[in-house]
Amino acid sequence: MKRRLLLVSNSTLHGGGYLEHCQQQIKDFFGIGVKRILFIPYALCDRDGYAKTARDKFNSLGYEVDSIHEASDPVEAVRKAQGIFIGGGNTFRLLKCLYDNNVLSEINKRVLTAITVTMVTVIPQDGDGVPYMGSSAGTNVSTVSINTTNDMPIVYPPSFNAIGLVPFNINPHFLDTDPNSRHMGETREQRIIQYHEEPDTPSVLGLREGSMLLVEGNKATLLGTCKARLFTRGKPTTDFESGSDLSFLLTERQ
Amino acid sequence: MKRRLLLVSNSTLHGGGYLEHCQQQIKDFFGIGVKRILFIPYALCDRDGYAKTARDKFNSLGYEVDSIHEASDPVEAVRKAQGIFIGGGNTFRLLKCLYDNNVLSEINKRVLTAITVTMVTVIPQDGDGVPYMGSSAGTNVSTVSINTTNDMPIVYPPSFNAIGLVPFNINPHFLDTDPNSRHMGETREQRIIQYHEEPDTPSVLGLREGSMLLVEGNKATLLGTCKARLFTRGKPTTDFESGSDLSFLLTERQ
Repeated sequence: MKRRLLLVSNSTLHGGGYLEHCQQQIKDFFGIGVKRILFIPYALCDRDGYAKTARDKFNSLGYEVDSIHEASDPVEAVRKAQGIFIGGGNTFRLLKCLYDNNVLSEINKRVLTAITVTMVTVIPQDGDGVPYMGSSAGTNVSTVSINTTNDMPIVYPPSFNAIGLVPFNINPHFLDTDPNSRHMGETREQRIIQYHEEPDTPSVLGLREGSMLLVEGNKATLLGTCKARLFTRGKPTTDFESGSDLSFLLTERQ
Repeated sequence: MKRRLLLVSNSTLHGGGYLEHCQQQIKDFFGIGVKRILFIPYALCDRDGYAKTARDKFNSLGYEVDSIHEASDPVEAVRKAQGIFIGGGNTFRLLKCLYDNNVLSEINKRVLTAITVTMVTVIPQDGDGVPYMGSSAGTNVSTVSINTTNDMPIVYPPSFNAIGLVPFNINPHFLDTDPNSRHMGETREQRIIQYHEEPDTPSVLGLREGSMLLVEGNKATLLGTCKARLFTRGKPTTDFESGSDLSFLLTERQ
């Protein structure tokens, strides 16, 4: 399967600028073949401001940016994209807006080129296999569903099912339990374990801030500065070092 | 309007036992008129274990407990209840289960006795106005909607609309921003502000752990050991001391 994804946990790392901690990986990922990137700013309310932030950053890396909210036909914008980047913000707002603009299945079709286990059959098309980058909420919506977002459900999307570019879920901004906390809300780990109390739930990769997943075809590699934690229903949780081969996640049966 | 609610931010306060920090308020609230309380354990997976925890605590305060999951007819159990307590856990699971068991409107009808601004007309019935206590997720579902829960969306409810016993929303376990945090996920305040970027969104009362709201008819009073923070769309946020009269929230137009 042709498929190229860069799924980043967080847009900004403490002490750094926007996408600064992953800028080398972004350049390696989009390379010199891609000239223009389609940016999807649906996760934030101020789309103009968000597009400017993304455009400034990607320009500095040598890429032109088209923002989907400036296009007269969003579906057509996805059809013509050489590369796609969905930025962070509120995951519910983002997913609802992807549905409202009918671009969910179109993004799936442009990024994948073969049948996936989570979506309906897609006929391979010339020019597909466009690289997809997501950050935070943009990483959440690339997976099976947004069931493992950390965000507040400020709007009601027509479904929690997402773009389905991989057959597992991701928890971005994964946060270890603070043993000194006096706050009694559920820890992140408890929340994901509650998710796996529900039947037929896929694995969840907890990406700590600073980490990201690179998917190339059927190969998945953990990149960045820290470990990731994998939660699989009925199995003990496991930590993986940066550089680990996580390709087995791509063959998970849903 | 006859209406008696005790809406608690959190079930357990750091260092204390289950419902220990609010046990005096619980006794004052249910009083000596109520002998049996209907417990709704839908927010947790282990309902038997949860019912035992609630039963042990309420027995120690002098109340018998019936758990709705042990009733052959949940709607009938609500119809016969002298008092209702919905415990915490996952808000999405809780709300979906309230819908699945058709008890949402029945709880509204038993607790309220007049027309409310958020729900359809309810004909007053003899025996209605039963006291309702919620904790954490049980507090969330008593409001307009679960749009301001902190929980992970592990299941998809048919709507985010909730029981509507008050015309505003609550954020339980409200957490102040930690100025020393290096985590880059949105703060609680940022999340609620994002909610108010959406049109026609009601006020949100951020109940810090240890605080609770007592509603008696058209009077609302903040109880507990700490301040609460009120977020109203288009207005500055305001902190209220314990003991404050928050009755103005009950007249909010949705």
